[in-house]
Amino acid sequence: MPGATDQTLRPFLWRASKLFPDREVVSRTHDGVERYTYSEYEDRVGQLANALDAAGVERGDRVGTFCWNHHRHFETYFGVPSMGAQLHTINPLLPDHHIQYIVENAADTVLFVDPSLVEKLAGAYDEEVFASVERYVVVGEEVPETSLSPVTDYESFVAEADAAYDWPDLSEEQPAGMCYTSGTTGKPKGVEYTQQMLWSHTMATLPESGLDIRSSDVVMPVVPMFHVNAWGLPFSTTAAGAKHVYPGPSPSPEDLASLIEEEGVTLTAGVPTVWLGLLDYLDENDADISSLDRIVIGGAAAPRSVIRRFDEEYDVDVVHAWGMTEMAPIGTVAHLKPGMESWDREERYEKRAKQGLLASGLEMRVVGDDGEEVEWNGEDFGELWVRGPWVTTEYYERPEANEEDFEGNWLKTGDVVTVDEEGYVQIVDRAKDVIKSGGEWISSVELENSLMAHDDVAEATVVGVPHERWQERPVAFVVPKDGADREALQSELTEMVRAEFPKWWVPDEVMFIEEVPKTATGKFDKKVLREEYDDESIVAGKSPDDAAPASND
Amino acid sequence: MPGATDQTLRPFLWRASKLFPDREVVSRTHDGVERYTYSEYEDRVGQLANALDAAGVERGDRVGTFCWNHHRHFETYFGVPSMGAQLHTINPLLPDHHIQYIVENAADTVLFVDPSLVEKLAGAYDEEVFASVERYVVVGEEVPETSLSPVTDYESFVAEADAAYDWPDLSEEQPAGMCYTSGTTGKPKGVEYTQQMLWSHTMATLPESGLDIRSSDVVMPVVPMFHVNAWGLPFSTTAAGAKHVYPGPSPSPEDLASLIEEEGVTLTAGVPTVWLGLLDYLDENDADISSLDRIVIGGAAAPRSVIRRFDEEYDVDVVHAWGMTEMAPIGTVAHLKPGMESWDREERYEKRAKQGLLASGLEMRVVGDDGEEVEWNGEDFGELWVRGPWVTTEYYERPEANEEDFEGNWLKTGDVVTVDEEGYVQIVDRAKDVIKSGGEWISSVELENSLMAHDDVAEATVVGVPHERWQERPVAFVVPKDGADREALQSELTEMVRAEFPKWWVPDEVMFIEEVPKTATGKFDKKVLREEYDDESIVAGKSPDDAAPASND
Repeated sequence: MPGATDQTLRPFLWRASKLFPDREVVSRTHDGVERYTYSEYEDRVGQLANALDAAGVERGDRVGTFCWNHHRHFETYFGVPSMGAQLHTINPLLPDHHIQYIVENAADTVLFVDPSLVEKLAGAYDEEVFASVERYVVVGEEVPETSLSPVTDYESFVAEADAAYDWPDLSEEQPAGMCYTSGTTGKPKGVEYTQQMLWSHTMATLPESGLDIRSSDVVMPVVPMFHVNAWGLPFSTTAAGAKHVYPGPSPSPEDLASLIEEEGVTLTAGVPTVWLGLLDYLDENDADISSLDRIVIGGAAAPRSVIRRFDEEYDVDVVHAWGMTEMAPIGTVAHLKPGMESWDREERYEKRAKQGLLASGLEMRVVGDDGEEVEWNGEDFGELWVRGPWVTTEYYERPEANEEDFEGNWLKTGDVVTVDEEGYVQIVDRAKDVIKSGGEWISSVELENSLMAHDDVAEATVVGVPHERWQERPVAFVVPKDGADREALQSELTEMVRAEFPKWWVPDEVMFIEEVPKTATGKFDKKVLREEYDDESIVAGKSPDDAAPASND
Repeated sequence: MPGATDQTLRPFLWRASKLFPDREVVSRTHDGVERYTYSEYEDRVGQLANALDAAGVERGDRVGTFCWNHHRHFETYFGVPSMGAQLHTINPLLPDHHIQYIVENAADTVLFVDPSLVEKLAGAYDEEVFASVERYVVVGEEVPETSLSPVTDYESFVAEADAAYDWPDLSEEQPAGMCYTSGTTGKPKGVEYTQQMLWSHTMATLPESGLDIRSSDVVMPVVPMFHVNAWGLPFSTTAAGAKHVYPGPSPSPEDLASLIEEEGVTLTAGVPTVWLGLLDYLDENDADISSLDRIVIGGAAAPRSVIRRFDEEYDVDVVHAWGMTEMAPIGTVAHLKPGMESWDREERYEKRAKQGLLASGLEMRVVGDDGEEVEWNGEDFGELWVRGPWVTTEYYERPEANEEDFEGNWLKTGDVVTVDEEGYVQIVDRAKDVIKSGGEWISSVELENSLMAHDDVAEATVVGVPHERWQERPVAFVVPKDGADREALQSELTEMVRAEFPKWWVPDEVMFIEEVPKTATGKFDKKVLREEYDDESIVAGKSPDDAAPASND
């Protein structure tokens, strides 16, 4: 068989440290902002690999991390996979029983844990499920009082180790990373990333069809490094030879603004709430974010208002992207096509508010209820299926989930989408959240976006609740802003929705709540609302006959 | 084993035709400029695959092309590999015995041949070596009178075929392409490209660290499509969703200028002589090439004067690149690093005149005579070794060449290079052309560049000839421009070199010739000059003792 050298991550590190030895890795820690160069980074990665070797970590072993975004966490990103072990980033926001399931399922041998997360991890500790863990490394310079044992601090762990490491030639099929999806239902599902998958994803994120990262960029991932490898940015930034900025534990809007200003950040990334917070901060404070060129928003839909404000007030492009743990994670990116830059603002925002164009190298299908592909007309919707070199074809040790979520090598994403004539994908709902009323589909997401556009609404979510006649009906849960006139708001919201959507989309009720319950990854937890909602209120509700879909009348 | 879908070329075509259905493929043919869209291109590719199916082509079969740069040749680029066959592009400029060797070695089953090349192919025809060829397809609308048989014209061949083709799911290890290196010595060596290698190369060319191709680009490959897949541009352009412009058979500088102006070409690529010709044309004629943003120059070193003229007179960046058939072919690209844009012109040109920075995803070593890696100081030189996912690890059926040209998975490129402190590679010579005089190395390429900078020199080459005392001594062969004063030129050139280089680098003789003999790929054929050079002239030559390297005195 003809062929070439395997696709592995290490050459990205080699190139960055050799061609960009003086580019910096900057990290906000509890002790202030630390910085070093790629050249020093490479040495530290070598030290880490030697230390893990000495600790008995072998090829194929899983090494877990329970950490925020900082340079030491980044050192594990290249150190662990390049020695042939598998980097398993654990989400510390998960409930204890999920952490237990994950650590036991992955059989981690070493766990790296942030000082501020030691207590959380110790709280989840269970002798039996943590049996595989031979060592805890507290990622800092000191070890807080803890029951975890044996435990070392990171700096002592690597201090004596040599910077030169004899890196092995790895197979591209070697598992290099692992993340668990944190669904709202059932046990988390493990996704393994081979060296090849991470290589492919890294290469795919570099060009325009990905995230368009250049060596001149200064990249600050605000998205946590335990969320699908911070969307791959630590790898991509290295492959581009760009500068890294890690914002550390729980960065405030002020921290972010100050890092942007002081480090000259050009590209940052995170979920929408982070950027809403930054906008609020900028309203009240002087901060120079003029270096910032674009913000990648994912994890949840980017509100049009955020896209508009960053463009009009700060000349920053919001780059909306969509992905999944199952695809390492980038799938679609809402960059503009040639010619669209001259469109008027609102037309541009409309495109940017969609999840965007499929990245080059992937394929997709949008499958309707009848199993056929739907038309690309921006209206017909169906479930998005994707496949490609960085899309997994299975979950780790979960044959029953594999049966359900894959069709051959296609991943059935569980996202219900439309695709417009230009190929822009828009998520209208999660398949499980879409509201099926009288034989038609209602998009909970579109209703939510509409409600959240109201000035007096802080957050809103719409869920389908059982209904005797229409199977399901939408009910809106709204968190009003402080001082809002709730009575007026209720009728205004209903009017707003009525003006914008078919009449059967209008929620039967608008209920006020103090907070939308969220999952560990910050997504709306609709399951809780559905459970809490009293069935009787439906029957007693105001669902008018004329709110039913025409096709059912 | 965890994993994902195989890396194949087809998703690039799928994405271009779905997301950029109206972007054009433009082609200059004997009958004028033809154009169609990606959407139509996809249909034509489907028709071609069905026609090849009907002609009996099966998975793994080799399909040869003997064609210039045009849309029909481009159709074979996706059609042949995506049906599971192997696209073998043959260089029609090779001597007949090489063509015979190549066709026999590759065992092509179908040969696509340009109308203007039918006679050349028929001239190389030999019943025994062409035994595998079951069909000839003349790539046009008519078949000229020929002895080749059975023969069809391309349009009849595909006319009846269906546009829908049931593309197979291929393994990424499936051979997809094949090119032969055309060295000046020995038999051509075959390099097979798997689907994975072409996928990797395509992805690597898209970002800044490659050729930086965007969907807004209009790409015109002047480099022939039989030269390592036109440096991969037909694949890369498709993956980016950019517009293609193919300049057809033997484009004149006028043709190129007119295509740039009329099609809005932003990126073009070819060997230096093409661009010298275009500059000469532009000096004498009105043509608007303002759409042009950059020219990729490879195949031979880009003269500094060309880089300067395009920048100063046309605001066009010359992007110098280096590659090899063995690496599909891109290896290094001389883009500027962050901050260098503000350097003064001459400093920038100095970087751009080098072969550049290794592409992201590859690794390299520069190995000195002692087998150790040389220092990156811009002075020490050694042989460049490379490896990576698009660098082959073997030649097809050539175990003796494999023994010589590879060390493990490293390709020993045969190029002697320096690397400067910033990591820019500069080729100082081919290993076989470097002149070894008195135990020191003399770079024939540096001497040639110096000689060619003289206004009265059209072309120049320097070869090492045997010498009794110093093993080898340099001799220059110079093609003077019309009207040059040869006597004056001879002494001026000697003075010029003496001022710039160590004294033992000064050629023992400067000989005037009418033309530098060239290989089929347009490179200087130094072997011919060495053979033609009369040994006695060395002994009778003027090699002074003081021209010897200091280390030998």
